[in-house]
Amino acid sequence: MYYIGVDLGGTNIAAGLVDENGKIFSKGSVPTGRGREYQEIIRDMAALILELIKGQGLEVTDFKSIGVGSPGVPDCKEGKIVYASNIKLRDVSLREELGKYIALPVYVNNDANIAAYAESVAGAAKGYKTSVTVTIGTGIGSGIIIDGKIFSGFNNAAAELGHMVLKMDGEPCNCGRKGCWESYASATACIRQTREAAEKNPDSLINSLVGGDLDKIDAKTAFDAAKQGDKTAIAVVDTYIRYIGEGLANIVNSFQPEIIVIGGGVCKEGEFLLEPLRKYLRENTFAPAHNIKIAGLKAAEMGNDAGIVGAAMLRE
Amino acid sequence: MYYIGVDLGGTNIAAGLVDENGKIFSKGSVPTGRGREYQEIIRDMAALILELIKGQGLEVTDFKSIGVGSPGVPDCKEGKIVYASNIKLRDVSLREELGKYIALPVYVNNDANIAAYAESVAGAAKGYKTSVTVTIGTGIGSGIIIDGKIFSGFNNAAAELGHMVLKMDGEPCNCGRKGCWESYASATACIRQTREAAEKNPDSLINSLVGGDLDKIDAKTAFDAAKQGDKTAIAVVDTYIRYIGEGLANIVNSFQPEIIVIGGGVCKEGEFLLEPLRKYLRENTFAPAHNIKIAGLKAAEMGNDAGIVGAAMLRE
Repeated sequence: MYYIGVDLGGTNIAAGLVDENGKIFSKGSVPTGRGREYQEIIRDMAALILELIKGQGLEVTDFKSIGVGSPGVPDCKEGKIVYASNIKLRDVSLREELGKYIALPVYVNNDANIAAYAESVAGAAKGYKTSVTVTIGTGIGSGIIIDGKIFSGFNNAAAELGHMVLKMDGEPCNCGRKGCWESYASATACIRQTREAAEKNPDSLINSLVGGDLDKIDAKTAFDAAKQGDKTAIAVVDTYIRYIGEGLANIVNSFQPEIIVIGGGVCKEGEFLLEPLRKYLRENTFAPAHNIKIAGLKAAEMGNDAGIVGAAMLRE
Repeated sequence: MYYIGVDLGGTNIAAGLVDENGKIFSKGSVPTGRGREYQEIIRDMAALILELIKGQGLEVTDFKSIGVGSPGVPDCKEGKIVYASNIKLRDVSLREELGKYIALPVYVNNDANIAAYAESVAGAAKGYKTSVTVTIGTGIGSGIIIDGKIFSGFNNAAAELGHMVLKMDGEPCNCGRKGCWESYASATACIRQTREAAEKNPDSLINSLVGGDLDKIDAKTAFDAAKQGDKTAIAVVDTYIRYIGEGLANIVNSFQPEIIVIGGGVCKEGEFLLEPLRKYLRENTFAPAHNIKIAGLKAAEMGNDAGIVGAAMLRE
């Protein structure tokens, strides 16, 4: 038996056929065309799925279910998207609309929850009952897995850990609050912090690495310069890691997950990032003071496939 | 069938006999004598329980289990106290030691978790599957109930929500971090904030209410003066409520519990406290922006009995 996973994004709809071990054996994508009515978007989603199935010489009856991940807030029980950021979907039943084209059970969840679920089922958190996956990108996405299941609170909107306030009255955040973790520890924030440091220290290696064009700074620039011993960059990276660590310490004190998985571009820094974070957690969380074991920290393993695999693995 | 609940505190051991509806029908207490060896403490605990049972003309066999709540970190599975703040208990099996005197199953958990469990089973969170109870006192204690069960993470140390950092690099906290929620929103913090305002504004009603002796300020003083229209006190209360609200907003964005219960002395302020907090949550959490229902907010109902009732209700 096989499973279908769909990653509905603001730009593309990506779909994949997945086996029982969470391995994708066929995938494809079509543009979302996000200004369109939901009926058109879902019609294209169905066509993509049917094409993938046909391409493998399979039938719909060879599949057990379709899982769909989208940004925003789902109604998991009803198979609906209540609200999707960036896409024109408000209170839309994917179960009903997709069911018009394909006779399979449809499960829906939030994309960050699904990324965490994928890590739990087939990635870095496999074998751990309780995990938190934090994806550091433009913003901070996060998902919480408790006893192997997605935890999303009573209204399916939980696990917005990027929107914990860490510095009350601090940097304004897109969510309307001030000082959210996301506004200090996202890749966007890292770029801002790197740029500010480069402006103040024109002799820094940061400036040379981008040929003096500060618009070319990305979330990697400070890490690259720090690894070459540039003092300004080292200070930027130390502070940025501390921002990540402070949010992770809050997560540990609140949830005590067995493992924390870090995803997003920054996780490519590997131990250069993870080792100081582990140290930060040992020194700044409640449990180690009493010789109690705390969460391990690993880099995400599922990469871009997380959305498809996690969605395919969704169950009632 | 009846149940036994024990609230093991730094000063007293309180025990109670509880019926199936969570009602205490007999209770008593003895001093903890916290400097003593664990064998002596547990011997006295057993004697207290046996005396209560005898006093009601009952037998040990009329009871189903003993639950014990203590500060610190338990090993729920093994019935142990791994670490108890304030009491000389390190890696002590209550199940084994108490079992020497009374042949009943023994369950152990943390006192803040048990207070939350008591509210969930018989108090303000009754009927809600997912709840968070926050007890505002000298510090901030908290417990998380998910699907009717205590959630305490993989190491039984979760739900230390008072030790989320809210103001990075802010006020030093007992836990070693800086800027924890507890250091801004506990009763201790409220007293500090009231005192600072009184010192800066000697004409404030705060000063007259304590007859000029600022050592007499308690967590109620600013609320009392604010209700009489004192501007300094109103500013203190507004800021203090905002500190509580900011932490609660973090809890909502992280857990999306169906209900949040506020316990501790400050909950006696009732709607004067709860109404502005509800407003703060509506304006500062992620869900309402998308017309999604958020947590209700209620005052705790179990009072001093929470520790005994919650412990008595503990199950495997």
